[in-house]
Amino acid sequence: MKWEYIQPVTIRFGEGIVKEVKDVAASMGCKRGILVSDPFFLTNGLADKIVKDSDGTLVCVYGEVSPNPEVKEVDACAKLIRENDIEFVVALGGGSALDCAKASATMCFREGESVRTYHGTGVPMPQKHLPLIAVPTTAGTGSEVTCVAVLSDHELGKKGPIVSNGFYPSIAMIDPELTYTLPPRITASTGIDVLCHALEGFWSKGHQPVCDALALHACEIVFKYLRRAYKDPQDKEARAKMAEASVIAGLAFTLPKTTSSHACSFPLTNLYHIPHGEACGLTLDCFARINAEVENGRVHEFARKLGFADTYALADAIHELKVDLGLRLDLKDFNLTDEQVAELVKTSHHPNMLNNPVEITDEILNEMYQSMR
Amino acid sequence: MKWEYIQPVTIRFGEGIVKEVKDVAASMGCKRGILVSDPFFLTNGLADKIVKDSDGTLVCVYGEVSPNPEVKEVDACAKLIRENDIEFVVALGGGSALDCAKASATMCFREGESVRTYHGTGVPMPQKHLPLIAVPTTAGTGSEVTCVAVLSDHELGKKGPIVSNGFYPSIAMIDPELTYTLPPRITASTGIDVLCHALEGFWSKGHQPVCDALALHACEIVFKYLRRAYKDPQDKEARAKMAEASVIAGLAFTLPKTTSSHACSFPLTNLYHIPHGEACGLTLDCFARINAEVENGRVHEFARKLGFADTYALADAIHELKVDLGLRLDLKDFNLTDEQVAELVKTSHHPNMLNNPVEITDEILNEMYQSMR
Ligand SMILES: NC(=O)c1ccc[n+]([C@@H]2O[C@H](COP(=O)([O-])OP(=O)(O)OC[C@H]3O[C@@H](n4cnc5c(N)ncnc54)[C@H](O)[C@@H]3O)[C@@H](O)[C@H]2O)c1
Ligand SMILES: NC(=O)c1ccc[n+]([C@@H]2O[C@H](COP(=O)([O-])OP(=O)(O)OC[C@H]3O[C@@H](n4cnc5c(N)ncnc54)[C@H](O)[C@@H]3O)[C@@H](O)[C@H]2O)c1
Ligand SMILES: [Zn+2]
Ligand SMILES: [Zn+2]
Repeated sequence: MKWEYIQPVTIRFGEGIVKEVKDVAASMGCKRGILVSDPFFLTNGLADKIVKDSDGTLVCVYGEVSPNPEVKEVDACAKLIRENDIEFVVALGGGSALDCAKASATMCFREGESVRTYHGTGVPMPQKHLPLIAVPTTAGTGSEVTCVAVLSDHELGKKGPIVSNGFYPSIAMIDPELTYTLPPRITASTGIDVLCHALEGFWSKGHQPVCDALALHACEIVFKYLRRAYKDPQDKEARAKMAEASVIAGLAFTLPKTTSSHACSFPLTNLYHIPHGEACGLTLDCFARINAEVENGRVHEFARKLGFADTYALADAIHELKVDLGLRLDLKDFNLTDEQVAELVKTSHHPNMLNNPVEITDEILNEMYQSMR
Repeated sequence: MKWEYIQPVTIRFGEGIVKEVKDVAASMGCKRGILVSDPFFLTNGLADKIVKDSDGTLVCVYGEVSPNPEVKEVDACAKLIRENDIEFVVALGGGSALDCAKASATMCFREGESVRTYHGTGVPMPQKHLPLIAVPTTAGTGSEVTCVAVLSDHELGKKGPIVSNGFYPSIAMIDPELTYTLPPRITASTGIDVLCHALEGFWSKGHQPVCDALALHACEIVFKYLRRAYKDPQDKEARAKMAEASVIAGLAFTLPKTTSSHACSFPLTNLYHIPHGEACGLTLDCFARINAEVENGRVHEFARKLGFADTYALADAIHELKVDLGLRLDLKDFNLTDEQVAELVKTSHHPNMLNNPVEITDEILNEMYQSMR
C-alpha cells in the first residue's frame, strides 16, 4: 500500500486562546493585517474586540462574508487586501469566512483576475499567498486545517471546492468558547458535517492510515457529544469535544477528500438553500449503506470500533442522530417535480463523487432522491 | 484543555519507495548529498545501490554508525559533511543511523564544537540544519518523524535524547521492504519499542487528542501483527503493518514525549547493553499497572478500545507478547548486586520520568527492580 501524509498547519487549541491572535501574528513577524469575518461577529462585538486588542496590527476588516461565500466576495476581499498593503490575514467565523479568507489570501496577488478563473475550471490555483491565521467559530468544516475553499457562483449556478496547497492556513487557533453562541440549529447542521468529513474521509478511495485513525476519533466524539452541545449551548465539555472533533475530522478528510455526500450537498445547497452540514447529512446514512461492503469490510470494522454491530447499524444511528437534532430527513417540503429530481441527479455528479468507493450511477442517485420525495 | 499540534515532516510510505530517494532529493533542489548508514547496509549492498542510483548526487558515505550511536560518531559525521560541502543528508538505517544523521545535520554548522555541548546539559540545540531525508529500516523508533535524537556518551557513562525542532526530517520515506532482512530478535525488540512509544505517548502528562488517536491505531497493529512479523520475516502484510505502526507511533509520542519505560531504558542499555526496544519493553507492563488509574480511567478506556477488559488485562497481554517474542522478562541473568540495583534506581530518574502521570519514587523503582532480580 502506498500513501502520503502532510500536515503543514500549526494547531493551537484551548479555551480563551483567541486572545493570543495578536501574539501569534507578532511571532510571525507580520505588521499589517486584515480581519475577514461575517456580519454576525461584526454585530456581536467580537470582531471589534480583536481589532482593538491587536494594537494597530489589524488595519482593516472585510465583514461581508455570507454563508456559502460567493466568488464576488473573494474578489472584493482580495481587492481590499491589495489596496491596504496587507501582510497577513486573520479569518474569524465558520467555514464561510475561513474559505473566503483562504481564497482571498491567494487572489490578492492576482490583480485584474477573478477567482472564477479557478472555480470548477480545472485551472490550478497559483501557490503564492499571504500567511493566514484561521479562527473557526463553528464546530463543523475543519477548514482551519484543510487545503480546500468552497465557493459559490450564483450567476453560473454552481457551488464547489477549490483545492490548493496554498490554502493551508499557517496557524489554526481553535477556541471552543467561540462556539457557545451557536444556536442549536447551526450546532446541529455544522456538527453533522463533522461526521460526514470523518466518515467520507475514511471510506474515500484516497483513504490512508493516519487519516483513518483520526476519522475514528472524530466520529466517536460526534456520537457522544453532539446531542449534548445541541441541547445545551453552554455545555462546555460538549463544546470543547465538538471543537476537537471538528479540527481532527478536518485532518481526516483534507488528504483523502470527501465523497458522495459532499458531492450531493453542493446542488442541495445551491438549488434548495439547505445549510451545508444538513445537506451533507441528508444522504450520509444512505451512502453508508451503499458503501457498507467495500474493501473486505473495512467500513464494518470501523462501525464496530464505534460500538455498532455493523455499517447498517451505524447508518441507523446516523438517522436517529438526525431525528434527535431536528435535521432534515427527506426533501418532501420541496414538492420536487420529475424535472427537479432529474436535475439533482445530474448535478450531484460533482468530481468528489469519483472518490466514493462504490461507483454511484444515475440509477442509484435517482432511487435515492425518489425515496426522499 | 489546551493543546498544540505540529507535524512538519512529509511522509511517503510504500513498498519499493526507496527507489525514489533520488527524485525526492532532486525535487528539494539539492545537489550534493551524504548517505549516513550503519555497517549492515554497507555490507549488504543497499548503501552502494542507493549511491549508484543517485546519479552522482550522493557524493560521500558515513557508514560507521553503531547501535545507540555515540557523540563521537556525530562529531565525525558532521566533520565529513563540512569537508564535502554537503547540501542534504540521506539517513538509511534503524533509529541509530537516523539519530546520528539528525544530530550531524545540525552539528555540521558548528565547527570546533562537539555535540556533547548539547547532550544532557540543558543547552538548547541550535536550529540551523541541513535538510534530511530519513529512510528507516527498522519498524521501531519512528525517528523518521520525531524531533528527537538519542545519543550515548560512553566516556561520561550516559545515554539520553536531545530534542530540537531542527531534528524533524524534511521527508520520511518508509519502505516496508527494507525491514524484510530484520532477524526475529531485532524485529521483536524494535517492535516492542513501537508499543512503548504509543502507550507512553498516550499516558504522558503531555498527552493530547491527535496523538491519542494515533497511539490507539499503532497499539492495535502491534498486538495484531508483531507476532506474525517475528515468526515469518517475509510476511509482507505484517511487515507493512508494523512499518505503519512505527511511523504512526512516532507521530504519537514526538509531542507528548516518552515517560517511565524510556527513562528506565537508558541505564538498562547503557549499563547492561540491553537493546533499546527490549529495554523499554522490560518495564512497560509494570508501568501500565502503576499508571492504570490516572485521570478518570483514561488508560482503562484505551485498554478497552484495544479489546482488553482493563489496563491490568492490557499489562498481562504485554507480558504474554514479550514471552511469545522471546524478549527479556527480568534481570536475573545479570546477578545484580544491591549496589547495582541502587545505581539503576538512581540513574532511571532521567527527565523523561517527569512526564509519567504517576510520580515515580525511588521506592517504586526499587521494588520494581528487586522483583526483577
Ligand atoms: N474548507 C473546507 O474544508 C470546508 C469543508 C466543509 C464545508 N465547507 C464550506 O463551509 C461553509 C459552511 O461553513 P459553516 O458550516 O461553518 O457555516 P457558515 O460559516 O456558513 O456560518 C453559518 C451561519 O452561522 C453563523 N455563525 C458562525 N459562527 C457562529 C457563532 N459562533 N455563533 C453564532 N453564529 C455563528 C454565521 O454568521 C452564519 O450565519 C460552506 O460553504 C461549506 O461548503 C468548507
Ligand atoms: N529518535 C527517536 O525518536 C528515537 C526513538 C526511540 C529510540 N531511539 C533510539 O534509536 C536507537 C535504536 O534504533 P533501532 O531500534 O531502530 O535499532 P538500531 O538502529 O540500533 O539497529 C539495531 C541493529 O539492527 C540492524 N539493522 C537495522 N535495520 C536492519 C535491517 N533492515 N535488516 C537487518 N538488520 C538491520 C543494525 O545494523 C543494528 O545492528 C537507540 O539509540 C534508541 O535510543 C530514537
Ligand atoms: Zn463539509
Ligand atoms: Zn524508543
